[in-house]
Amino acid sequence: MNIGIVGLGLIGGSVAKAIKQNTEHSVYGTDLKESVIYKAKLIEAIDDRLTEEILGICDMVIIAVYPGETIKYIEEHQKLFQKGCLVLDCCGVKEAVCGRVRSIAAENGFTFVGAHPMAGVEFSGFEHSQKTLFRNASMILTPEVDMTIQDMEKLKKLWVSIGFTNVQISNPKEHDRRIAYTSQLAHVVSSAYIKSPTAEDHKGFSAGSFKDLSRVAKLNPTMWTELFLLNRENLTEEISTMIRHLEEYRDAISQGNEKDLWNLLNEGTERKILIDKNTKK
Amino acid sequence: MNIGIVGLGLIGGSVAKAIKQNTEHSVYGTDLKESVIYKAKLIEAIDDRLTEEILGICDMVIIAVYPGETIKYIEEHQKLFQKGCLVLDCCGVKEAVCGRVRSIAAENGFTFVGAHPMAGVEFSGFEHSQKTLFRNASMILTPEVDMTIQDMEKLKKLWVSIGFTNVQISNPKEHDRRIAYTSQLAHVVSSAYIKSPTAEDHKGFSAGSFKDLSRVAKLNPTMWTELFLLNRENLTEEISTMIRHLEEYRDAISQGNEKDLWNLLNEGTERKILIDKNTKK
Repeated sequence: MNIGIVGLGLIGGSVAKAIKQNTEHSVYGTDLKESVIYKAKLIEAIDDRLTEEILGICDMVIIAVYPGETIKYIEEHQKLFQKGCLVLDCCGVKEAVCGRVRSIAAENGFTFVGAHPMAGVEFSGFEHSQKTLFRNASMILTPEVDMTIQDMEKLKKLWVSIGFTNVQISNPKEHDRRIAYTSQLAHVVSSAYIKSPTAEDHKGFSAGSFKDLSRVAKLNPTMWTELFLLNRENLTEEISTMIRHLEEYRDAISQGNEKDLWNLLNEGTERKILIDKNTKK
Repeated sequence: MNIGIVGLGLIGGSVAKAIKQNTEHSVYGTDLKESVIYKAKLIEAIDDRLTEEILGICDMVIIAVYPGETIKYIEEHQKLFQKGCLVLDCCGVKEAVCGRVRSIAAENGFTFVGAHPMAGVEFSGFEHSQKTLFRNASMILTPEVDMTIQDMEKLKKLWVSIGFTNVQISNPKEHDRRIAYTSQLAHVVSSAYIKSPTAEDHKGFSAGSFKDLSRVAKLNPTMWTELFLLNRENLTEEISTMIRHLEEYRDAISQGNEKDLWNLLNEGTERKILIDKNTKK
């Protein structure tokens, strides 16, 4: 296949490197930064620049930029995709993107599939991209109901070949509801956690739990602001739930209520064990 | 030295194994469970059982049980420690323990030192103890002001020899204030995080941030209930601070306030970078 990649940041760059490493497909990439395209070509992460001409012969186009930019790119290039081309985004929210792009795809005869690779590190940009980023990761796809099985098989094969061990089929609404918790709330909590004045004095007084809790506090504020605001309702609800639970712990502790506190901690432990067990099934 | 270890759980068992592995000291251990003492001797984690007779010839005694049990052990054995013996606890709170034991030590001619090894895993018991548990970890000591430099050197040497790369001198009050944030709040937050109803649906929709945030939700409820209630004031304040910060994020998100949200996330990122930088100094 000829595969186009729009945006060679952490995700797009890693996809390009992984496809070149693991498959025989040709990869064409583009980025806002000329220097990134040049570098990607130099280290053979891409075969060549993705021009408008090459876009017309691509069998698949993977767009790895922010939600707003993704929609803009598709709007501006809608006439240039090959008929039957598989066009994917990589955004962390799906309703806002899929809802806008759906009709454009139908009108122009290409197939749009929402995609969210569940992988990342606390760094961004092509320089941090790596061909092994997706090893053992989960890929969430939110295809339209009329997508063919053949196209889905083609997609699954590609993702598995670059390291994903799980391809999860979902729909935009369900995706956004779950991601508000697993990913977005986790980032909010980490960001809030690091703001305690005591954080400055952690040196020598911290171990694994501090390290884990604070890791994703370092994030890309522009990207996450966009993602959070595109999933407002779900995320607001998750934060409120979290606050309610924290209040239960605080009240039990401040009142010295040993029984309640033990129950709260025990419930959390049992729940964590149960959830880990279900994951292994 | 002859070293006694009281309680051969995750911490006591790991201390025993690490001392036997890395030093020439003799190790004598005891535990509430006969089977644990038997097993520890069998795999040479201890040289022999710590009897009351042997206690009297120990140069150092490391007590690795819960706070209440630690105080009880010291009260019951106060007459049996050798004069000049170094007696340490391993509790996660220090004021409650050191405050009670201080006068007993002075009256009976042994030296008590509060100790908190900043290492652990989400499992407990001798079967999970490991001789490498303390590799690159931090040991916090809260000695009395009249402790001799010679004794402190002896202690430092022991901890460094079993893997600790940092021996942090503090006092009980300061210890408890900082630990309320780095360790205790982290456990409360993780326990609260796992309680969202959405947690049950995380499979295929989660990656590193979910994994890190939820890791320590699996904890020993009895131990942590005791530790939290012995550090009530500090921990209550940290949870309240955390809730206040979460409310700021929630309000910015629910109001769609892009500027405020960006600032909140950017502040968190800058703070995390600053804190990591200070740690490396």
